[in-house]
Amino acid sequence: MVVALLTDFGTRDGFVGVMKGVILSIAPNTPIIDLSHEVEPFNILEGALILKAHYSYFPEKTVFICVVDPGVGSERKAIIVKTPKYFFVGPDNGLFDLVLREEKEFRAYKILNEKYTLPKRNNTFHGRDVFAPVGAYLKRGVKPEEIGKEINYEFKLKFPEPCRGEGFVEGEILYFDRFGNAITNIECSNYTEGVFRNKKIRVVSHFLEGTKGEINAVCGSFGLMELFVPVDNAKERFNLKVGEKVKFLY
Amino acid sequence: MVVALLTDFGTRDGFVGVMKGVILSIAPNTPIIDLSHEVEPFNILEGALILKAHYSYFPEKTVFICVVDPGVGSERKAIIVKTPKYFFVGPDNGLFDLVLREEKEFRAYKILNEKYTLPKRNNTFHGRDVFAPVGAYLKRGVKPEEIGKEINYEFKLKFPEPCRGEGFVEGEILYFDRFGNAITNIECSNYTEGVFRNKKIRVVSHFLEGTKGEINAVCGSFGLMELFVPVDNAKERFNLKVGEKVKFLY
Amino acid sequence: MVVALLTDFGTRDGFVGVMKGVILSIAPNTPIIDLSHEVEPFNILEGALILKAHYSYFPEKTVFICVVDPGVGSERKAIIVKTPKYFFVGPDNGLFDLVLREEKEFRAYKILNEKYTLPKRNNTFHGRDVFAPVGAYLKRGVKPEEIGKEINYEFKLKFPEPCRGEGFVEGEILYFDRFGNAITNIECSNYTEGVFRNKKIRVVSHFLEGTKGEINAVCGSFGLMELFVPVDNAKERFNLKVGEKVKFLY
Repeated sequence: MVVALLTDFGTRDGFVGVMKGVILSIAPNTPIIDLSHEVEPFNILEGALILKAHYSYFPEKTVFICVVDPGVGSERKAIIVKTPKYFFVGPDNGLFDLVLREEKEFRAYKILNEKYTLPKRNNTFHGRDVFAPVGAYLKRGVKPEEIGKEINYEFKLKFPEPCRGEGFVEGEILYFDRFGNAITNIECSNYTEGVFRNKKIRVVSHFLEGTKGEINAVCGSFGLMELFVPVDNAKERFNLKVGEKVKFLY
Repeated sequence: MVVALLTDFGTRDGFVGVMKGVILSIAPNTPIIDLSHEVEPFNILEGALILKAHYSYFPEKTVFICVVDPGVGSERKAIIVKTPKYFFVGPDNGLFDLVLREEKEFRAYKILNEKYTLPKRNNTFHGRDVFAPVGAYLKRGVKPEEIGKEINYEFKLKFPEPCRGEGFVEGEILYFDRFGNAITNIECSNYTEGVFRNKKIRVVSHFLEGTKGEINAVCGSFGLMELFVPVDNAKERFNLKVGEKVKFLY
Repeated sequence: MVVALLTDFGTRDGFVGVMKGVILSIAPNTPIIDLSHEVEPFNILEGALILKAHYSYFPEKTVFICVVDPGVGSERKAIIVKTPKYFFVGPDNGLFDLVLREEKEFRAYKILNEKYTLPKRNNTFHGRDVFAPVGAYLKRGVKPEEIGKEINYEFKLKFPEPCRGEGFVEGEILYFDRFGNAITNIECSNYTEGVFRNKKIRVVSHFLEGTKGEINAVCGSFGLMELFVPVDNAKERFNLKVGEKVKFLY
């Protein structure tokens, strides 16, 4: 049984390390996987995207502790979400929306029982004081009903929906990965070609198949259509921006 | 029993990975936590601050291997420090000063016994050749007395002390975290307000309570007063600098 | 038995985290060590160098999963290499050349058996879909013969060889580490002095022994000669470039 962490904390200041210290204090010998700690600060959509892209590859019963939390210390709820295979722990700010659109069968709980959080709580760091210990207790087998009380989950993420027309779907660039590939909001499908900046672009099956020096599209590892330039950084090469429109044709 | 690592090695060149290879060669199945590897190169004060902020949240018997070591290979001593709950291993250059001001009850040992270091030692990388194996042997239960001989610990870190007056304390900015929050050298207390750049600033209890677009102060997760701008990067927004003075009033 | 990972994926997008999710799904309780994920994108030589520098410090039977893979999805082979002490898994593009020049005694296998890869394979992410599961099955004890069929390993890395003359060796800068030290292609030996940019440079035994503010040389932790400036960033200070020539005299 694994704990996975997703935050916007970076790895420089020790914020992630101390969360792991707390987790292993409560649940020794827990394998901990870092999903990402470099979500752009406060960017809930980016955190939601990365979580959605990868969570289903994790072992059954993984506890995902996710902290992109601009509202820490305010009235926003701290929650646990239980799906058939996983637990998710974090702030109630939409971070789990993309996963839960897909999972559908789930229950949400508001964290209340201070027995399962750190005694000297600090109002600026619930990652350490609330989410890490709650995740560790879940890993130890404590039931979410003991830690909180069930609530209705409300979806709140502002996700730009692609627009479907006859024979096409139009969407936009959501995010750039480390390689400068542009991940769009359009799910993979059997597209014949794309249109970007008023030009046709090729849809290929792997990166090296793309036309060199030009923008091509591929079904990427997020399960979403990506724009890329073979063995190059598309973002920098063509000065791509989040929000730019792209269209794919069936 | 956990090993925690704090270095200025970054994670790009494999220096941290190879330390872990050495540790698991000697003490298999040791859980290893990265506290930080992005301490500014050679910045002992920064390493000391990050260690002090987080160490007390780690499981009992954690071995902290800490390497910010501009003097590697020179005459500076390699040491083990034993406190009631923890071991600390690293260069004797002040890196442990802030922890040991707080711990008080401790013993220090100079590492001498080459049985517990790697045979083909390299004079540029004691993280791999000395500190990682010594930490691993401590984790396996070898006594510090077997690895070295007891010495008097000498405090040597240049830490800028805050200045206390009647009804106020004056300090300065020490460090910026990933979010651009300015961590000061002033410990948390019940301050009513602050003064920064000749202007009053509010002291609030969590980030979202702060006045938008302005500098506010909060008791941060290092246990020190922090300057911040809500959901923004205070350092960049106001061009803050290490060493700038700040005052808090009771 | 440990799995070690070396990639150019960065740690921001979750690509490494999801590989670990796959590994622990197949081989629970596997200790996983990150060697580096910040190899420059597509830079096979850099990946090969980092792997070669550190692999021999890892525990026996470590499975190294290495993914610097500009040709992902194309005709390039996916391979396993078995040496007396280790397994290496990754693309057949030269990434293992520097290790195998040294190891000499080894066998290589082309990965073929889809029983040991993920069912819904994506042609842009073999790190997750091929290399992670294959590495996990090797760790579980599956024989490489079951996963693939033996092939002849062909060396293909373009490695700039140093040039040996009477009483000297001439090479070049290959890579800069996090501290701005310039790692060359010249193996450590008992050099008396060096020549760089038509000036003599000192060869010293550790960093602090070097002349301040000037370029010195040392036998570095990669087992290669390095150029450095004491407690400074040589690359930035002297605007060093990859490919610049350096000579060492016996």
